[in-house]
Amino acid sequence: MAIKPQSPILGVLGGGQLGRMLIQSAVNYNQDIHILDPDPNAPCKDLCQRFTAGSLKDFDTVYAFGHGCDVITVEIESVNTEALEKLQREGKKVFPQPHILNLIKDKRKQKQFYQHHNIPTADFILTADKAEVIHNSAFLPAVNKLGKEGYDGRGVQVLRSENDLEKAFDAPGLLEKLIDFDTEIAVTVARNEAGEMLAYPAVECAFHPTANLVEYLFAPAQISAEIEQKAQEIAKDVILKLGMVGILAVEMFVTKDGEVLVNEVAPRPHNSGHHTIEANFTSQFEQHLRSVMNWPLGNPSLRCPAAMINLLGEEGHEGVAYVEGMEEAMKEEGVYIHLYGKKITKPFRKMGHVTILDENIDQLKERATRIKELIKIKSKA
Amino acid sequence: MAIKPQSPILGVLGGGQLGRMLIQSAVNYNQDIHILDPDPNAPCKDLCQRFTAGSLKDFDTVYAFGHGCDVITVEIESVNTEALEKLQREGKKVFPQPHILNLIKDKRKQKQFYQHHNIPTADFILTADKAEVIHNSAFLPAVNKLGKEGYDGRGVQVLRSENDLEKAFDAPGLLEKLIDFDTEIAVTVARNEAGEMLAYPAVECAFHPTANLVEYLFAPAQISAEIEQKAQEIAKDVILKLGMVGILAVEMFVTKDGEVLVNEVAPRPHNSGHHTIEANFTSQFEQHLRSVMNWPLGNPSLRCPAAMINLLGEEGHEGVAYVEGMEEAMKEEGVYIHLYGKKITKPFRKMGHVTILDENIDQLKERATRIKELIKIKSKA
Repeated sequence: MAIKPQSPILGVLGGGQLGRMLIQSAVNYNQDIHILDPDPNAPCKDLCQRFTAGSLKDFDTVYAFGHGCDVITVEIESVNTEALEKLQREGKKVFPQPHILNLIKDKRKQKQFYQHHNIPTADFILTADKAEVIHNSAFLPAVNKLGKEGYDGRGVQVLRSENDLEKAFDAPGLLEKLIDFDTEIAVTVARNEAGEMLAYPAVECAFHPTANLVEYLFAPAQISAEIEQKAQEIAKDVILKLGMVGILAVEMFVTKDGEVLVNEVAPRPHNSGHHTIEANFTSQFEQHLRSVMNWPLGNPSLRCPAAMINLLGEEGHEGVAYVEGMEEAMKEEGVYIHLYGKKITKPFRKMGHVTILDENIDQLKERATRIKELIKIKSKA
Repeated sequence: MAIKPQSPILGVLGGGQLGRMLIQSAVNYNQDIHILDPDPNAPCKDLCQRFTAGSLKDFDTVYAFGHGCDVITVEIESVNTEALEKLQREGKKVFPQPHILNLIKDKRKQKQFYQHHNIPTADFILTADKAEVIHNSAFLPAVNKLGKEGYDGRGVQVLRSENDLEKAFDAPGLLEKLIDFDTEIAVTVARNEAGEMLAYPAVECAFHPTANLVEYLFAPAQISAEIEQKAQEIAKDVILKLGMVGILAVEMFVTKDGEVLVNEVAPRPHNSGHHTIEANFTSQFEQHLRSVMNWPLGNPSLRCPAAMINLLGEEGHEGVAYVEGMEEAMKEEGVYIHLYGKKITKPFRKMGHVTILDENIDQLKERATRIKELIKIKSKA
């Protein structure tokens, strides 16, 4: 290389759990990290070389923050991309590139991008408001998505029949044909500035029935070699057509007749890659670091089958968090608990995750279910 | 458990690489860490909830620091144990316990402890000064060790014949029979306050011929099942007889006739356990955390054979450090680089380490040798 004495500073917009796990990797490379987050007690607060509390959406704040960095990345899409564009014009490295953030943070543009680039995706109609959704009731059953600001399960709902039209989003969004899928899978793909590109093996995601958040994840996905190859090719195709540098999580549906359709992408470390910390040779966080710093990419292969469960704030609990059942879980072989340093829990808030390693797939699924029942994030009575 | 909202603060005396890797583990458990280190730019400086620059040997400094913590541990033995004893009397948890630190940081007391407790160790003679070493020249060839302040290869030398007597240490120390050993091995053993105890599989250490620092480490050690069992039993015997809580690295000689002799111990995470981060189910850092916090211990088994090489400051280089050959190494599968965040290199300074995973033991050794030649820590020209 060599890594220089005055090595470049990596700035991260967002200081939540993704930034926190990125820092855990960056420490190994003496990579200094600066963080900007609106929450003065963000999970990254005490773990970086410089922490700035400030808005991710304010031009001046983002610009001033980025000015003190050499490379800038994000752990959330909803950031001020005008500031990032200015920083990029002034010579800063910004990965993912601002125009890609603009594309991805608007689900309408994202869908149009797939359509224009022949990337397989579910049929859809853009809708300007509630009236337009109602006007297209013949398109039901469909998924109604808000164009912007959807995150962690918000801004997405299923409209099965005309009875559901009442709750349609009254803002620019889209209606997407409800896919009768067999499996939901995700492939993470990384690409550095030098053009090196590597995809992780597909993982299988099971979503929470109402909260629309990943509830369980299994790696490897139980799919045919043919579907696996198709999914990897699609993921690579998307990152190439985006021309993106960084890590991209590509969520896909596998339909009952073996089609693979892109659902959504995230241009950053993603919930569907948390297991890679212990289960793969290179974690998604280290891979993201390698990508944006233009270092050689690491081997993405799986070392051991894994399950990942999210630790979501328990329903009915809001306030100072405590973790129930953790000691029991810690006694088990191959159980890795990751808490995100959030003091306050609320229903469905992502408070941590657990990865379970087991060579035996059936046992792995049984253990994941059991450990999910065991660990609960509650508020102090 | 539950882990409480106001969870106890863990104070660490010393903020070097061991503290740094401990923090990387502690993040997963929301475990707040306070660090005391004399160097205001210590490797842990930006990675903990509170960093205090101050002497580890000054009573008032250590006492004041410990007062703000609930549990106190160390990453170096040479600390003010009087302050720790007072903190312990006042109800703080101090692990390893101060009297054990006193015993271990004096190699003379350490050897006497083995003798008194029938723990197999090389024969020795205590020597008060140089004159007493010379008086015992019949004991040569021997290892001459300083009683106190030896660290990272300092304070240990071999006296092969009377010609070497000139360099004998002129301070309280000891002469230890030079062992004609086959292998040097180390077993890490952990014990928590509840009395749970687990030992890691033995690793094999190859030392630098002159610097007396671990140069290569291989796991598992290439020893018979019988020697492995003997080594594990000895390590457990030592921690039990010490009555210690925390993690203990037990370095041992395996003699040509199959005896296992304790060389030295370290009551903290140790260089001989760095590979456990990637190679074992539970890293030594997490295990130390679990021990001192009285959490259940984790599974210490090996997931994959591993080699570890220390990245020592290159001879002839002193100044602002840079890492040569890192990019090449990063391209390889199963290569994990850990840099310690030290700006200044000097000959033999521990600047980082690399762990290499490979199921094929012969290939593993070949790769370790090659990567050691590849990565060099030099000073900027």
